[in-house]
Amino acid sequence: MHQRTARPLDPASDAAIAASVTPLPIGEVAAKLAIPAEALYRYGPHKGKLSLDFIADLEDRPRGRLVLVTAINPTPAGEGKTTTTIGLGDALSRAGMKAAVCLREPSLGPVFGAKGGATGGGRAQIIPMQDINLHFTGDIHAITAAHNLLSALIDNHIHWGNALDLDARRIAWRRVMDLNDRALRQVTIGLGGPANGFPREDGFDITVASEVMAILCLADGLEDLEARLSRMVIGQTRGRRMVRAAELEGIGAMVALLRDAFQPNLVQTMEGTPAFVHGGPFANIAHGCNSVMATRSALALADVVVTEAGFGADLGAEKFLDIKCRQAGLAPSAAVVVATVRALKMHGGVPLKGLGAPDVAAVTRGCENLKRHVENLTKFGLPVAVALNHFTGDTPEEVAAVAEALAGLGVGVHVCRHWANGSSGAEDLARAVMELVERPSTFRFLYPEDMPLAQKIETVARQIYRAERVDFSSAATARLKEFEAAGFGALPVCMAKTQYSFTADPAARNAPTGHVLPVREVRLSAGAGFVVALAGDIMTMPGLPSVPAARDIFVMPDGFIAGLS
Amino acid sequence: MHQRTARPLDPASDAAIAASVTPLPIGEVAAKLAIPAEALYRYGPHKGKLSLDFIADLEDRPRGRLVLVTAINPTPAGEGKTTTTIGLGDALSRAGMKAAVCLREPSLGPVFGAKGGATGGGRAQIIPMQDINLHFTGDIHAITAAHNLLSALIDNHIHWGNALDLDARRIAWRRVMDLNDRALRQVTIGLGGPANGFPREDGFDITVASEVMAILCLADGLEDLEARLSRMVIGQTRGRRMVRAAELEGIGAMVALLRDAFQPNLVQTMEGTPAFVHGGPFANIAHGCNSVMATRSALALADVVVTEAGFGADLGAEKFLDIKCRQAGLAPSAAVVVATVRALKMHGGVPLKGLGAPDVAAVTRGCENLKRHVENLTKFGLPVAVALNHFTGDTPEEVAAVAEALAGLGVGVHVCRHWANGSSGAEDLARAVMELVERPSTFRFLYPEDMPLAQKIETVARQIYRAERVDFSSAATARLKEFEAAGFGALPVCMAKTQYSFTADPAARNAPTGHVLPVREVRLSAGAGFVVALAGDIMTMPGLPSVPAARDIFVMPDGFIAGLS
Repeated sequence: MHQRTARPLDPASDAAIAASVTPLPIGEVAAKLAIPAEALYRYGPHKGKLSLDFIADLEDRPRGRLVLVTAINPTPAGEGKTTTTIGLGDALSRAGMKAAVCLREPSLGPVFGAKGGATGGGRAQIIPMQDINLHFTGDIHAITAAHNLLSALIDNHIHWGNALDLDARRIAWRRVMDLNDRALRQVTIGLGGPANGFPREDGFDITVASEVMAILCLADGLEDLEARLSRMVIGQTRGRRMVRAAELEGIGAMVALLRDAFQPNLVQTMEGTPAFVHGGPFANIAHGCNSVMATRSALALADVVVTEAGFGADLGAEKFLDIKCRQAGLAPSAAVVVATVRALKMHGGVPLKGLGAPDVAAVTRGCENLKRHVENLTKFGLPVAVALNHFTGDTPEEVAAVAEALAGLGVGVHVCRHWANGSSGAEDLARAVMELVERPSTFRFLYPEDMPLAQKIETVARQIYRAERVDFSSAATARLKEFEAAGFGALPVCMAKTQYSFTADPAARNAPTGHVLPVREVRLSAGAGFVVALAGDIMTMPGLPSVPAARDIFVMPDGFIAGLS
Repeated sequence: MHQRTARPLDPASDAAIAASVTPLPIGEVAAKLAIPAEALYRYGPHKGKLSLDFIADLEDRPRGRLVLVTAINPTPAGEGKTTTTIGLGDALSRAGMKAAVCLREPSLGPVFGAKGGATGGGRAQIIPMQDINLHFTGDIHAITAAHNLLSALIDNHIHWGNALDLDARRIAWRRVMDLNDRALRQVTIGLGGPANGFPREDGFDITVASEVMAILCLADGLEDLEARLSRMVIGQTRGRRMVRAAELEGIGAMVALLRDAFQPNLVQTMEGTPAFVHGGPFANIAHGCNSVMATRSALALADVVVTEAGFGADLGAEKFLDIKCRQAGLAPSAAVVVATVRALKMHGGVPLKGLGAPDVAAVTRGCENLKRHVENLTKFGLPVAVALNHFTGDTPEEVAAVAEALAGLGVGVHVCRHWANGSSGAEDLARAVMELVERPSTFRFLYPEDMPLAQKIETVARQIYRAERVDFSSAATARLKEFEAAGFGALPVCMAKTQYSFTADPAARNAPTGHVLPVREVRLSAGAGFVVALAGDIMTMPGLPSVPAARDIFVMPDGFIAGLS
């Protein structure tokens, strides 16, 4: 039964590679950005949080250039968006820029499930990767506690007399847990008699799907955090009045639980580039980017900041730009679209098992997916570079086919080898990005705030997904009108759609046209400040696979945690 | 809706008093115990964890004297066990001893519920109290995650084919959450169709009731931690075979989640005495003391260590001595029993509302409760001192009545004013304790390991509770025999009984005799290493009161968290 002493460390594993470098003391990392010692709250020698006072003092500083790393629609072949963000950040540092990267923090669900952690891989990792992939500085646990405190207050309120006349059938506020646990998706609670409250249906989402997470990532200060939490709609009364979270009288306690978690975390890449790793909202029912606090701080401290958005550019980049940049007043200077020959081949019709054989024609076909994402980004006024992450099996002809396919768009294709080589593998990409960010900004949003909600959804569907039209359910249409009547018409929309396709059908790879986007349900995230449009079944609590990653994680006799990736 | 800027800080609150002192840098606190800088993993300027390597190196050091602080049966009048532990530690430091205190870490449940935090009060507090009362160093969150990972693995195992043939009706492993949330006590999970697993009954305990918490507090090293987690019994197969946690193949991941949490935390009292605050198991279905790792480390580093046990001495001290000291090889040198005139009056029959009026006769009557606890402790061979925490309304005659009542036992009664005055208020108690710990040890356990389980329960009931007999349910008798047949006969017993009385009836105050202790159910905690005997209804998930403490907690504009106590 004792696994601990029995297994050796795999020297090719991400954990072993990460451990092969000696991290800089976090104070030295902070010094690269002129962060003074007293502004850094340390969690051990290699992690820190920036004080809110220090961040407030950055307000009037000039801001650096912001580079967004996004990707083609993901496939099982893998793209390497996080490694590209890290590799590009390191390559910019190597080129003499004062650079920083901004990333999301990992959830324990994928760490123990199928996907693994979120700290990059190979020579392009953020460290200490064991800490970051497990509890890190406790931010996600704090969000779990704050979210579930509100849940407990809701049922407690009903138990003690329900003065607000909450309709137990219309409580929208579920509970959360930072694990993949399918058995909690749908539950009944309050069973067992009067002492245990009133029975009702409920369910658990994974913590990163909590609106509290989205709010933590969009608020620009403690006061805004509190105001957004207060505004959240947790359900309705019997008379169908929307009930705000503040009515449960626990917002102060929630802010207290979130105070430390709200401070951006500072760590480093394997090459010592400062890395802000803070927040990680779901990329479907939320906007999928690291916190505004981290990005704004990084921009005030560095000349160039590389960040990533969730999923492919159709979802992640669009939401980064239309939600996060809009709310935070950010104007990115360039975008990098990540692709691989293997993934492009899959978009070109090659199955996963067939990826071993060279297939130039399939690459060329699959480039339609890449080209559409590039075109979409130019609709936001962003200059674009393509990062082609190199795999050993890629042939020169296949690589050439990508450059050729994109020639007409005036976009450079940069072969990247940061996974194997670190910063030296992303030098070409870094040079291109340094040139792009010097161009005068022409950044613009896809739609204006004052456009009606349904029309915003249609704009994203037509302009980005290239859908022929949107098919709203009658319930969705009615709810959108309700939201507008209640004063939420100026919010941006947050599209919840499969990440695997431009359409709502995960099997429709590459660049489909003529499709219809079904919007069966819309939800209000009044605190986060967006209206979620659900196109298809969206899972907010993943399950574990039959062989979970947890099985291969173990602690070695010296305390080293092996098996994380 | 915005509470944050609206409320002033109450200068008489524990939070304000704690904030009135400037804490020492944690490195200076560590230096008092000759803990080198490299052995301390820092969480900000005022909290740290001791490295496991350093602790391993302490193994051969001579050990200091261990003093247990315990109490009469608690009443709504309050006793002040934690403040006495802190005040005594400070007074011993003031007297020139190299002293440390060992305490449990607070759970968020009581912090937001009715009881408040667990960091003492007045001038006898551990700091930084805001941090300790909220997430501290994340230990309890880590336990929640490790516990619930195992829960998810169990349902995942059933979902993917149930190769172990787990009987879903006999899963003993519930889920946990570190909040008071009565609606989660009894739930049904896995609803909603095949994708969500098999529906079954389940429930949530508060995290501090998790066997993982008990194990974290009893294990003496990482290897022991892993072995204990592996041994836990999580349920039965259809063929009634006990299934061990290790069979779910997630122990390595659980240890990885617990690695940092397993390191003892170091903080300080308001007077700068080193305080180890680590672990906090429930005091009914578990043993209710801080971790063995913390106590053993403190004893290797300090000349005298003051620690406390949960509830009154009948439950807390007995389990501290028969479970923790037995498993960890500890031999305490003295015990302090805490009482107040007000609480003794309640044991003497005065209701809470009548406590304002002096009543010497009631005090004398109530001293029967105190005397019995003192006598019980001498059965363990421990020299005893009584700490009488002074309230402003106590009359000299009432105080004198306590001394008089105890005169026959040869035990000193020491009036304490550390709540109001800090260490100077506990000087008399400290002098007495310094004398007691110099006596040659006559410490012994109440019962030997090789006594049959039922007889161990009877021994505690007769010797400590003064019950006439134990009434075992037939199920309990059968299960005890089952445990013995399975090789668990040598385990100590962990009594789960109301803390308010020597009997199983919470209303039976003072010193009842002739009662029968009903043991309706017994449970095996195979990893923690004890057999739990349940006498009466034991709540493992508290509920929130109608006006939860959460309502009064808020963050001030400068980030100060007010409303904690």
